[in-house]
Amino acid sequence: MTKHILLMDGPDGPGLIYHVTSVLFRHGLNIIRNDEYVSPDGRFFMRTEFEGTPDGQIILDELRSVLPTDVTLRLNPKAKKSIVVFVTKEHHCLGELLIRYGFDELDADILAVVSNYTTLQPLVSKFGIPFHYITHENKTREEHEEAVLRTLAIYQPDYLVLAKYMRVLTPGFVSHYNNRIVNIHHSFLPAFVGASPYRQAYERGVKIIGATAHFVNNDLDEGPIIAQNTQEVDHRHTAADMSTMGRDVEKIVLSQALKLVFNDRVFIHQNRTIIL
Amino acid sequence: MTKHILLMDGPDGPGLIYHVTSVLFRHGLNIIRNDEYVSPDGRFFMRTEFEGTPDGQIILDELRSVLPTDVTLRLNPKAKKSIVVFVTKEHHCLGELLIRYGFDELDADILAVVSNYTTLQPLVSKFGIPFHYITHENKTREEHEEAVLRTLAIYQPDYLVLAKYMRVLTPGFVSHYNNRIVNIHHSFLPAFVGASPYRQAYERGVKIIGATAHFVNNDLDEGPIIAQNTQEVDHRHTAADMSTMGRDVEKIVLSQALKLVFNDRVFIHQNRTIIL
Amino acid sequence: MTKHILLMDGPDGPGLIYHVTSVLFRHGLNIIRNDEYVSPDGRFFMRTEFEGTPDGQIILDELRSVLPTDVTLRLNPKAKKSIVVFVTKEHHCLGELLIRYGFDELDADILAVVSNYTTLQPLVSKFGIPFHYITHENKTREEHEEAVLRTLAIYQPDYLVLAKYMRVLTPGFVSHYNNRIVNIHHSFLPAFVGASPYRQAYERGVKIIGATAHFVNNDLDEGPIIAQNTQEVDHRHTAADMSTMGRDVEKIVLSQALKLVFNDRVFIHQNRTIIL
Amino acid sequence: MTKHILLMDGPDGPGLIYHVTSVLFRHGLNIIRNDEYVSPDGRFFMRTEFEGTPDGQIILDELRSVLPTDVTLRLNPKAKKSIVVFVTKEHHCLGELLIRYGFDELDADILAVVSNYTTLQPLVSKFGIPFHYITHENKTREEHEEAVLRTLAIYQPDYLVLAKYMRVLTPGFVSHYNNRIVNIHHSFLPAFVGASPYRQAYERGVKIIGATAHFVNNDLDEGPIIAQNTQEVDHRHTAADMSTMGRDVEKIVLSQALKLVFNDRVFIHQNRTIIL
Repeated sequence: MTKHILLMDGPDGPGLIYHVTSVLFRHGLNIIRNDEYVSPDGRFFMRTEFEGTPDGQIILDELRSVLPTDVTLRLNPKAKKSIVVFVTKEHHCLGELLIRYGFDELDADILAVVSNYTTLQPLVSKFGIPFHYITHENKTREEHEEAVLRTLAIYQPDYLVLAKYMRVLTPGFVSHYNNRIVNIHHSFLPAFVGASPYRQAYERGVKIIGATAHFVNNDLDEGPIIAQNTQEVDHRHTAADMSTMGRDVEKIVLSQALKLVFNDRVFIHQNRTIIL
Repeated sequence: MTKHILLMDGPDGPGLIYHVTSVLFRHGLNIIRNDEYVSPDGRFFMRTEFEGTPDGQIILDELRSVLPTDVTLRLNPKAKKSIVVFVTKEHHCLGELLIRYGFDELDADILAVVSNYTTLQPLVSKFGIPFHYITHENKTREEHEEAVLRTLAIYQPDYLVLAKYMRVLTPGFVSHYNNRIVNIHHSFLPAFVGASPYRQAYERGVKIIGATAHFVNNDLDEGPIIAQNTQEVDHRHTAADMSTMGRDVEKIVLSQALKLVFNDRVFIHQNRTIIL
Repeated sequence: MTKHILLMDGPDGPGLIYHVTSVLFRHGLNIIRNDEYVSPDGRFFMRTEFEGTPDGQIILDELRSVLPTDVTLRLNPKAKKSIVVFVTKEHHCLGELLIRYGFDELDADILAVVSNYTTLQPLVSKFGIPFHYITHENKTREEHEEAVLRTLAIYQPDYLVLAKYMRVLTPGFVSHYNNRIVNIHHSFLPAFVGASPYRQAYERGVKIIGATAHFVNNDLDEGPIIAQNTQEVDHRHTAADMSTMGRDVEKIVLSQALKLVFNDRVFIHQNRTIIL
Repeated sequence: MTKHILLMDGPDGPGLIYHVTSVLFRHGLNIIRNDEYVSPDGRFFMRTEFEGTPDGQIILDELRSVLPTDVTLRLNPKAKKSIVVFVTKEHHCLGELLIRYGFDELDADILAVVSNYTTLQPLVSKFGIPFHYITHENKTREEHEEAVLRTLAIYQPDYLVLAKYMRVLTPGFVSHYNNRIVNIHHSFLPAFVGASPYRQAYERGVKIIGATAHFVNNDLDEGPIIAQNTQEVDHRHTAADMSTMGRDVEKIVLSQALKLVFNDRVFIHQNRTIIL
């Protein structure tokens, strides 16, 4: 028996769980795990894992016939996502992704790596993945992004993963991958938005640093947060020390966030993530 | 509209969620939150919060008519639990409970405090709660427990909370309060079972200490774990330092565990807790 | 043999540790613990614990004769600090301080509690501590602060502890207690400066909340940070839930920060704390 | 000016810091950082970083002339250590070490990888490091270890790193690398000593799992602990889930422990580590 995933969201109302479970029950499908959430502003979210051998189209049709029309349904989203990874010069997040990918732990295929520097090409080549060096020098931001988009057109990835990509994306670019770009920011957002967060953290004298994985939207570092984690520091740690220590947090947080996204456990609502 | 809680557990099978939600839907009751879990050995657990004005007996009768007979149902368990707190000489957990109780944050009524020493009587008296000094001196373990049981008979508490009660309870005593005794153990169980865990932790040179809140069963420190938390230490910390630092962890972990228990969020299965 | 503490800070230069240890050695005083730190901008900090029966004045005179004149020395700062605690309506930090004080764990004497509401008077009275209700109603900020200062003049405390005191202090007030006011802020600063940080945290959709104990200076929430800690949250937690969960973090962080301050382990330099 | 490190340990006594700093001061050497510790049983440990251009032999001779004869001194231990990494089939710790090594972040040279399986040979070959497959099949434990020792004889590494090496070493083998073998154990020691710790953790129903990096001595999982870290789990996590989640903790803890060891910050005393 195969495992199936049903994702659903819409305005809250009576009987939503009942209607879904009645259709599954009628078809002899067994729910393994069911998680739901109702937001304070009245939106209903549900993620259902079930087993059996259903005719997907029939199930969807029956669900649509019993549910309100403004409910969004997704049955069995693509199991293994495809991604393109963006990097600049830092290797730690990329290295983490490559090792996981090499041992089939990423729940995604890395189609290619894009970078505005050649620094990480040798690392990528070890793993037999295409590396696209697209310099931003002597280009306007728009020209650079067009070159990137042309490369992405080859791969048509499900998601872009910014694994320490040190360039701000324009709203025009982001609009091509709405809610499909995941970034790792090297601070405990919303503390230390923008450049040099470890320098900022040192100056402020914080006792804990952190990292934040989030979806990218049009406002820099303002997109929905997927995962965060922290690390204690003290007065002896320079900004450079914090940067070194932070790497371990960054790469683990990014990987944990991607696991949630790639397993279809993340909904977005009102610039917040709901993780079921 | 009042909030209701339905607790359910039994052998897993098809349609359990469907059957429950169909009854609630028919009666116009709106599910606010629903959590369920199926254990690897095939037992189903569900906790449902719903709103409306049902006739509880009718709901239960209908649920029983559509569900297998070996399913356990509890509708609206007693909202505010009553407890008796047991202490020896250490004040930190008791102080935490008293302050919370004093500001109605405990989700339980403290009916009395029992202790084998008088040390904490002045603290308890500040809060106007009966304090029962029951010495264990010149008594066998059984005689002492009988004296305690006689005191408990006055109060008939829902739960006993061992807030650093430094005495081992006999199986005979425990059997009176099966799955209704919560203890705080000052180690990260199962590390350092038994006496002087901080001394043991120091000797072993651990870099992290912890505390564990658990139900008490017949085997010392072996009951189902409800909550745990940890605290970093280093070589400079003596066993006495660890004991001091550990107090903050102990009292917070105990309070968090009690909150879960008193809100009917904890199921017990195979010596493990399921927290919905 | 009594334990002594020597605190020292000044411009870094060769031989500072040597000069201090040579004086102590000549007088037969045994160093138990020595911690020092040199800041990136070249300032030297040292905290020395030693045992013996020295004539303090002679030691200080000899130290001054061998050390540069711009070095600050403090030998045996007052062991037990005195404090006045400021609160508004929330009890959790105050309760924590009172319980610790009641069992002589605070390393300070609570001389009095000041509040702009009467809410917490019953709690304070249980512990036999003077409670000063100083309303801010029908007063300008300056008038209110003058009334507070008159009350403080009675007690002459070493430190003021703002244990969830929901009023902003003027620079004029702060200047009376420079580096002697400790505040607990209910966010992981510098995230969510200002009012309603849990509301802000909810809106931003963070996955971790926190609390920060810091010295108060003229800029709101901008003073040197002493201690921070965090707590994981998820999408289910409302701002009210975060507020409840945050209380446990707030009270523990405040207590830990006070322990450091009261034990003379905290130096301040460039708006950062150095904790030796 | 080069940075120098002086390591010292011996019975505690008056004037030890004074004697060392007086020699350094006389030679115009500037202490950058000094950390010391006195154990409860009266042993003194010190790690001193200083700058300047000393004649090392003269410094050591002078130190020996002013210090008690039973003090151990090490001046400028080898800066970059050499290691051989041992693995079985799991890749995550090895992958972490290889990526760090590839970007010169390990503070050590990986001379070779030894394994009793060929599983990880392809990964190792990507990084151009010798891989020695030494099967344990059809060999006694002693024969297998002799084969390993012959391979080690080629490399003469400073340390052996057991990066999920699933074989118990005999006391005879360990004696060749006393205090020079670092192991990562996949539990929060001393909880769950021995095989299948995640299975044990699941059975016990713990709410937090962890990992422990420690030196290996003759008693399995009983050597001095260098670093530990933890990860929250809940009832939904199977032993397999815990194993997956634990990998992230294991690899980070191992790397952090190695950084401490390779930077000469770890002393061993009474089966405990002192980290200065």
